[in-house]
Amino acid sequence: MTFFSSPFRANIQAMSPYVPGEQPGVGERVIKINTNENPYGPSPAAMKVLREFDGERLRRYPQPTARAFAEAAGTVLGYDADWILPGNGSDDLLTMIFRACAEPGRAAAYPMPTYTLYRTLAKIQNAEAVEAPFDDDYNLPADALAAAGAAVTLVANPNAPSGTAFTAAELEALAVRVKGLMVIDEAYVDFAASSAIELPRRCPNVIVLRSMSKGYSMAGLRLGFGVARPGILTELMKVKDSYNVDALACAVGAAAIADQAYHDQCVAKVRASRQVLAGQLEAMGFRVWPSQANFLLVRPPRAAAREIYEALKKRGILIRYFQQPKLDDKMRISIGTAEDNAQLVRAIGEILDRGKP
Amino acid sequence: MTFFSSPFRANIQAMSPYVPGEQPGVGERVIKINTNENPYGPSPAAMKVLREFDGERLRRYPQPTARAFAEAAGTVLGYDADWILPGNGSDDLLTMIFRACAEPGRAAAYPMPTYTLYRTLAKIQNAEAVEAPFDDDYNLPADALAAAGAAVTLVANPNAPSGTAFTAAELEALAVRVKGLMVIDEAYVDFAASSAIELPRRCPNVIVLRSMSKGYSMAGLRLGFGVARPGILTELMKVKDSYNVDALACAVGAAAIADQAYHDQCVAKVRASRQVLAGQLEAMGFRVWPSQANFLLVRPPRAAAREIYEALKKRGILIRYFQQPKLDDKMRISIGTAEDNAQLVRAIGEILDRGKP
Repeated sequence: MTFFSSPFRANIQAMSPYVPGEQPGVGERVIKINTNENPYGPSPAAMKVLREFDGERLRRYPQPTARAFAEAAGTVLGYDADWILPGNGSDDLLTMIFRACAEPGRAAAYPMPTYTLYRTLAKIQNAEAVEAPFDDDYNLPADALAAAGAAVTLVANPNAPSGTAFTAAELEALAVRVKGLMVIDEAYVDFAASSAIELPRRCPNVIVLRSMSKGYSMAGLRLGFGVARPGILTELMKVKDSYNVDALACAVGAAAIADQAYHDQCVAKVRASRQVLAGQLEAMGFRVWPSQANFLLVRPPRAAAREIYEALKKRGILIRYFQQPKLDDKMRISIGTAEDNAQLVRAIGEILDRGKP
Repeated sequence: MTFFSSPFRANIQAMSPYVPGEQPGVGERVIKINTNENPYGPSPAAMKVLREFDGERLRRYPQPTARAFAEAAGTVLGYDADWILPGNGSDDLLTMIFRACAEPGRAAAYPMPTYTLYRTLAKIQNAEAVEAPFDDDYNLPADALAAAGAAVTLVANPNAPSGTAFTAAELEALAVRVKGLMVIDEAYVDFAASSAIELPRRCPNVIVLRSMSKGYSMAGLRLGFGVARPGILTELMKVKDSYNVDALACAVGAAAIADQAYHDQCVAKVRASRQVLAGQLEAMGFRVWPSQANFLLVRPPRAAAREIYEALKKRGILIRYFQQPKLDDKMRISIGTAEDNAQLVRAIGEILDRGKP
């Protein structure tokens, strides 16, 4: 097959193959607190729209900018729909941003550790990635990020996997210093005490990303959006797939975001569970980073984090372990239901006791 | 705001802004035969899966490779699921292919005129686009394509907007000659007499793209897939969004593709309408290119194509007019229901009569 020289770009060939996340098998009974899903289901109002969806609307192409969802989101957030660009998950917005901004000579900068997709997207664009290390308390490395001179600077707020958040004032101060686009990735902000959602109004280079996966419990639907000045969104639209958001996600998502009462109720339950779980783990000797998200980053008092992760897995409890620098002594635990959390705490207690001399 | 140098790449800035397709307003009564939708609705079996979809499956992230759909598609096509990569519409597969293969120095080649997205995706990658002109009968410009030495060669089969198709033998002969990846875009193949679906088995550099938008009447759902050797799909997966296909599209699409009886019945109706409409337009003096798709490319006998397009629009009938070289004397008409077609023929008859001296 000598005619088949590799058709793939060198940077793509050099990348590691994609490894799908850990998924329980069909029918396998596990407590799944490894991928930050909301333990409560989607809004009943959203499910009603889904059940009653007309086949005629599947037959036709969707409206290309998912306008009905943008309007519903705009009403909730106090923005005109022209400032809102929906995507096939907020990952889709990140993809648009990298395709529009990053290339060799046009770097991306972000703190480390953070959402690992930023590094992957930089590699795909063959762009330099400037990774500014967090200190142990996850303070914003603003000087290093500002000094990078990147085309795109990304900050997850709250950060993953630490759960720690930044103030809007800190983020605004950084936005003024960076040269290019500043992305504030608020995928987890529904569970936080505050947000930077007002910044696009004041800072012409800021885009705030939101997700319907966690706060609205629709990770399976794939819907997220960016909030920025229309001039930024016009450039991003040039690289988006023509019909990136399907007709169902648009309609169901619009109903979900309009149902703020249900959203607030689920979020309140997750926050309450987070506080209880954090207290219980601290009482067992864990270091627990202060979380504004629907997960906790924790460091166990004794026994390696990896051993606890493996022992939990044997008991049917899936949490997240990261085999990477600065994280391999820690574990990330999504906030489940009160019952999930109680089972987790019981299991960790037994594992730690067993490890005692 | 001097701190805000443009964060966007020069090739993106130079691109024209995205213009959404022509969409009738809410409640506007039109005959919409401008975007190649199937006039018949989705499979009842698929709609049943939609209506009964469990909220729990929306709560969780979808399986990252939409395996359930890949298995259903594989069963229908006689391929192992490892040879099938689902995407958020076949546009998503095209995006993956360009991101993985095209860049400055690594060109894309395709005949012209064809699906305009190929040119857009080349521009986004800042890659050279080698456009090999079709002759007036839309024969495959195989020599020019083979000579291009492109990293990726694309042929739409049937071609859009001509509707003309190529034989599998012609496409295989080209696949052997091209240097890189050969993409056979079969978005419209459900309406054709034959397909190149067997080629991935024989040619290590071929990927065949399929869409659920037209043949399965689910343009609003966004679901398509690629069929190729697993070694090709592994590289494409490196650039795909982690959860590109949502849980609903996966389940509903699996039910739709499994319902071949319904598919065949709708396709047969469209083909029959196509034959009738082609005959009627030829009788009125139109040149009608032989179509294997669910649309016709036609050239009117007198009066400019644009004038007919405008006159039809005033009567509430939307067809497609392309203001571009080689197409601006023609019109593209999607095959609607028998009643849609009858109204169209009547309206064209009146418009042509009115134009007589």
